Amino acid sequence: MEKWDTVAIVGVGLIGGSIGLALRERGLARQVVGIGRRTASLRVARQIGAVSRTTLDLGRGVARAELVIVCTPVGQIAADVRAAANACRIGALLTDVGSTKAEIVAALEGELPRQTRFVGSHPLAGGEKSGPAAATADLLVGRTVIVTPSAATHDDGIADVAALWSSLGANVVRMPPVEHDRILAGTSHLPHLTASALAAATPEHDLPLVASGWLDTTRVAAGDPELWRQIFATNRAHLLTALGRYEQVLATLRRALERGDEAKLVEVLAEAKRRRDAIANSM
Amino acid sequence: MEKWDTVAIVGVGLIGGSIGLALRERGLARQVVGIGRRTASLRVARQIGAVSRTTLDLGRGVARAELVIVCTPVGQIAADVRAAANACRIGALLTDVGSTKAEIVAALEGELPRQTRFVGSHPLAGGEKSGPAAATADLLVGRTVIVTPSAATHDDGIADVAALWSSLGANVVRMPPVEHDRILAGTSHLPHLTASALAAATPEHDLPLVASGWLDTTRVAAGDPELWRQIFATNRAHLLTALGRYEQVLATLRRALERGDEAKLVEVLAEAKRRRDAIANSM
Repeated sequence: MEKWDTVAIVGVGLIGGSIGLALRERGLARQVVGIGRRTASLRVARQIGAVSRTTLDLGRGVARAELVIVCTPVGQIAADVRAAANACRIGALLTDVGSTKAEIVAALEGELPRQTRFVGSHPLAGGEKSGPAAATADLLVGRTVIVTPSAATHDDGIADVAALWSSLGANVVRMPPVEHDRILAGTSHLPHLTASALAAATPEHDLPLVASGWLDTTRVAAGDPELWRQIFATNRAHLLTALGRYEQVLATLRRALERGDEAKLVEVLAEAKRRRDAIANSM
Repeated sequence: MEKWDTVAIVGVGLIGGSIGLALRERGLARQVVGIGRRTASLRVARQIGAVSRTTLDLGRGVARAELVIVCTPVGQIAADVRAAANACRIGALLTDVGSTKAEIVAALEGELPRQTRFVGSHPLAGGEKSGPAAATADLLVGRTVIVTPSAATHDDGIADVAALWSSLGANVVRMPPVEHDRILAGTSHLPHLTASALAAATPEHDLPLVASGWLDTTRVAAGDPELWRQIFATNRAHLLTALGRYEQVLATLRRALERGDEAKLVEVLAEAKRRRDAIANSM
């Protein structure tokens, strides 16, 4: 892949920091500028080598960038992309890493100034850790990045963004933003909701007797409540649909327990195991 | 701790195999007999050094044992303990590692022949792996083992079983069997139920787009459906109570989503994070 001259990363946490590290270690960018709101985070990003220079000023940070990657919280992405588009090089490429896509893409569609091109992305990577200190150059290697063009997205922008993620070792999948949000409601947002419900429903005095099953099942509930509120808020309808499917399965399990319907219990547990094993075996 | 002469382990899977390995590596038993129903598993247990000899015949296997540890599925434990009590040394000590305790302890209470003593146990260890090939000598190190005496349990038996688990590196907690089942319904059995519901509710064609959050949240759903059916069946009332608590939290989250009540959403997510972090920081 062609080398970028200047890449700007807005928000250098786990994902932004990892992208910076990967770009630099792979020699894909001459210069990576880290833009953030907290001096302490920017210092860490510089120290681990994720970025070559940093600034608190978005306009100045993106001024020479031909590629801008926005890694801020979902509720802030559209505004940050718009601000960056107003200040970066003419014709620059912009993308983001937000966990929901329809609202962001709709807000930016056909709207950007100065011949800049925006294509939404969502890397399926991360976890319960956060901040640049947890960043690694191989965070995206072998992971899936979903690129979400709309009917209005220019073809060359799509190809360039897909090439960016491929160059960092990821597998790229393309789909419309609404389709992304519909699927991720079930594969990412609902798991967070159920994990949080489980943690919140566990009596506090029983917590010393949780074992590895509880720890796994509630792990993502350690995520930032405000970040997840924004994700839920921007994918409400799909999340409610996925929750409805889940509530039905849970009601089936409750009925089977109440009636002592052992055959039904085993049927649902076996179906769950089949789906879980299908993934475990392919990852 | 005093060294045992002959220990019999009935069921040499992950837990039984790990106990055998630990007893032998720590020099706590002169001889460990592995008893099972499949020659292949017994061969693996012997090969990894978890047991010094093996047999398919429970009566012959426990004949010289002064300590018998029953590690078979929950639905089978009471019958295996009774059979072992009829065939082992007079005055032998028997324990089990079942995930539910009230039904097992009630079935065996004050009933055992030949001056044998039974005390129920539940090591909070294990995971999605199973079989003797996954056994490790340090599986119990630093883990909690719950010992569940009833009013009828002899004090010296309780002390001996507690000393057994301590000698393998575990932290021992004592509580009545019903109390154990009430707590574990929420900290172990409910997480399994919700993980299975989530896996079963995820549309099959969306499975390729699950990420680490889904993988964590559904991990235990890979467990054996028949083993978990037995656990659920022997702790039905408490599991339904824990499920009721969970359904209430889930209903609160649904209402908050439907109404766009962001403050309520953040409140539940923050409470969940607080409980999850409390454990993460103490383990």
